[in-house]
Amino acid sequence: MKKAGVAILGLGVVGGGTYKILTEKKEFFKKTQGVDITVECALEKNIERAKALGLSDSMIAANIEEVVSNPAVDIVVEVMGGVEPARTFVLKALMSGKSVVTSNKELFAKHWPELEAEAKKMNVGLFFEATCVGGVPIIRVLQESMQANEIKSIMGIINGTTNYILTKMANEGSSYEEALKEAQKLGYAEFNPTADVEGFDATYKLSILSSLAFNTKIYIDNVYREGITGVKAEDIAYGKEMGYTLKLLGIGKNTEKGVEVRVHPTFIKNDNPLASVNDSFNAVHIVGDSVGDIMLYGRGAGSLPTGSAIVSDIIFAAKHAEYFYSCFDNSEKGAKATRFVSDFKSKYYLRLIVKDAAGVLSEFTGVFAKNGISIEQVKQIAGKGGSAEVVIVTHDSKESAITKTLKKLAGMDIIKAIGGCIRIEE
Amino acid sequence: MKKAGVAILGLGVVGGGTYKILTEKKEFFKKTQGVDITVECALEKNIERAKALGLSDSMIAANIEEVVSNPAVDIVVEVMGGVEPARTFVLKALMSGKSVVTSNKELFAKHWPELEAEAKKMNVGLFFEATCVGGVPIIRVLQESMQANEIKSIMGIINGTTNYILTKMANEGSSYEEALKEAQKLGYAEFNPTADVEGFDATYKLSILSSLAFNTKIYIDNVYREGITGVKAEDIAYGKEMGYTLKLLGIGKNTEKGVEVRVHPTFIKNDNPLASVNDSFNAVHIVGDSVGDIMLYGRGAGSLPTGSAIVSDIIFAAKHAEYFYSCFDNSEKGAKATRFVSDFKSKYYLRLIVKDAAGVLSEFTGVFAKNGISIEQVKQIAGKGGSAEVVIVTHDSKESAITKTLKKLAGMDIIKAIGGCIRIEE
Repeated sequence: MKKAGVAILGLGVVGGGTYKILTEKKEFFKKTQGVDITVECALEKNIERAKALGLSDSMIAANIEEVVSNPAVDIVVEVMGGVEPARTFVLKALMSGKSVVTSNKELFAKHWPELEAEAKKMNVGLFFEATCVGGVPIIRVLQESMQANEIKSIMGIINGTTNYILTKMANEGSSYEEALKEAQKLGYAEFNPTADVEGFDATYKLSILSSLAFNTKIYIDNVYREGITGVKAEDIAYGKEMGYTLKLLGIGKNTEKGVEVRVHPTFIKNDNPLASVNDSFNAVHIVGDSVGDIMLYGRGAGSLPTGSAIVSDIIFAAKHAEYFYSCFDNSEKGAKATRFVSDFKSKYYLRLIVKDAAGVLSEFTGVFAKNGISIEQVKQIAGKGGSAEVVIVTHDSKESAITKTLKKLAGMDIIKAIGGCIRIEE
Repeated sequence: MKKAGVAILGLGVVGGGTYKILTEKKEFFKKTQGVDITVECALEKNIERAKALGLSDSMIAANIEEVVSNPAVDIVVEVMGGVEPARTFVLKALMSGKSVVTSNKELFAKHWPELEAEAKKMNVGLFFEATCVGGVPIIRVLQESMQANEIKSIMGIINGTTNYILTKMANEGSSYEEALKEAQKLGYAEFNPTADVEGFDATYKLSILSSLAFNTKIYIDNVYREGITGVKAEDIAYGKEMGYTLKLLGIGKNTEKGVEVRVHPTFIKNDNPLASVNDSFNAVHIVGDSVGDIMLYGRGAGSLPTGSAIVSDIIFAAKHAEYFYSCFDNSEKGAKATRFVSDFKSKYYLRLIVKDAAGVLSEFTGVFAKNGISIEQVKQIAGKGGSAEVVIVTHDSKESAITKTLKKLAGMDIIKAIGGCIRIEE
């Protein structure tokens, strides 16, 4: 029977879940997978936390050198999060001939080429299923099941915190602030929620997923990013009336014009399968030229779901002597060859607060026409105090044309405010 | 660069799609996968069909011996369907040291242990992603992504033909016969639709999927099977009113009492994600003890979607010198150790045509009580000619108790007919 020794760097939520699965299911894995996996040691400053999980004193390493010099360790699991010292530790593990399994999306999105180059040089494995969408096996599916496809698009709800907040706003009409507070109370959002609500977390994931989907390194700087902090409950409500559901989507497209990658609040039709993915669930929809549409759905975070992804990588690593790396030129040089669409097109939902007076509609719609934006729907909503709200849905329009139009509108006397501006994906 | 020579047995819908992908994307696979795949030959009686696809005369093999003795062939793709001669051909390929990729669910469900034993003996690969649910990568997900889980249940819409028919019946109120005719006209159902509509196809797939999910060989004889030929449009309509959608489901459960595997028409709640999987789309919902709920969705059949699954197996096979087989004791001996639940429990929807007379309700509900079946809902629908229709939803009841009750009811004067009997899964 194949044997594998594991070291875990960090015994937080994910590290704890991983330790629990590996120890409780040791016999199960021997029986069903033919591999005998032993947790040899862990690196964790909080000794009490380590002991509470059941680790003996001798299993708690003093420093990274002790871990990487341990000949019983074959696979190092990095679940610390953040760039440093995680990057240094992972590089040391690879240089010492250990395979690495990581859940660290920030590290991976920012330093993948460097880590992969080191892994290749040492001929060891580098696994990262847990970096994206927790228990949903999206990385392995992209790597081992979609090879026959040129992937046209990848679109998904890849952040559970924001999906919980938007679901709550939609179902209960709560404001962003109220929904965030509730999410924090339930542990779905952190005390400092910036990484989630400003879309950084989704950007890291989209960078990794679209790199695999489009066979070229997509840097996070290539990803357009917009969070949900500006989302208003009334826009969700108006959208609902028009048949739309609001989601924070990660969107990657590969068209003849180039690659387009973006994270932003997006209206999708209510009958889009992603529209019914609620609360902290995640889902990714892929279109391949051979397979057509596929969708994967599951829990994007949490101790055991993410632990499940990590353990699947550990078992995969334990069974395969050699790992097959990403299939594309994952270097800066490779990335430079990629053409990006920056001025991307989409439909837009806009809400304007206007003066309630005759001729106003014709005046501001003229600005749209001048900028080449064609309007699909206009809906006027009775306002108060001499104001009216107007909701506009445009046909496909260039980002630059919308920006120009909004700037012009903002300077007009008849426009009191731009209430909302949300892209629509159909 | 790794090279692989491929032979295709059968150039029908799936074989043709596979050939098309392999030849059109040869350069793409070299670039993105680092493998150079060449179709060396094919076995196809219909020479015109082979030539129409672009095969030269010299590529069309005269017989299986010519294929398996060809040293340029590393991987044999069997996409003929049916048990014989496919079984003999696959065995010959394995015995000649070729890896095999197959889409043949009937062959695989019936002869998996024999094929796997031969592959192991020869140390070659045996891949079968395309046997189940076409382009949805369910096999690889079960094998390579769910290892950390004891799988509690697997439940899915795993036959596109019947899903198309049931969707049509639900949306348009058509009868089974009308919907089948339409499906045949569109090529979704075969001229002889038995394999699909009687649930054999789903049974083959469920046998394979539940074997992988529960780590033991589940023979097709272990699967309870009931097709959709008896489904009435009025039951779909009554169910809809009660918040249920009718689907032909493959259901596998692993409980403390044992394994339970069944294929039958099933009412599920309208908000179950499987309820909105329509037309010829397929989806599989899995519950693992670590990962929780995951769902995979996509096209279950078709030339290119199934071709996509086959090509992913070919590339996987080309990259891995050694293949890792199913992780459990896939033998008759292993299978014998499995405990099955045969008298399974579920909620039931029943429709009775009864005499429209006083005291009737109390008389027949008494039969339910006597057999220990507790009733959740009763709804009487005005009938005609002295009859009434009564729709009953039971609480969880044993299969045997329902059978006994229906037998008793059928013999009663007040019961004119048992209109419908459909299990409910919640």
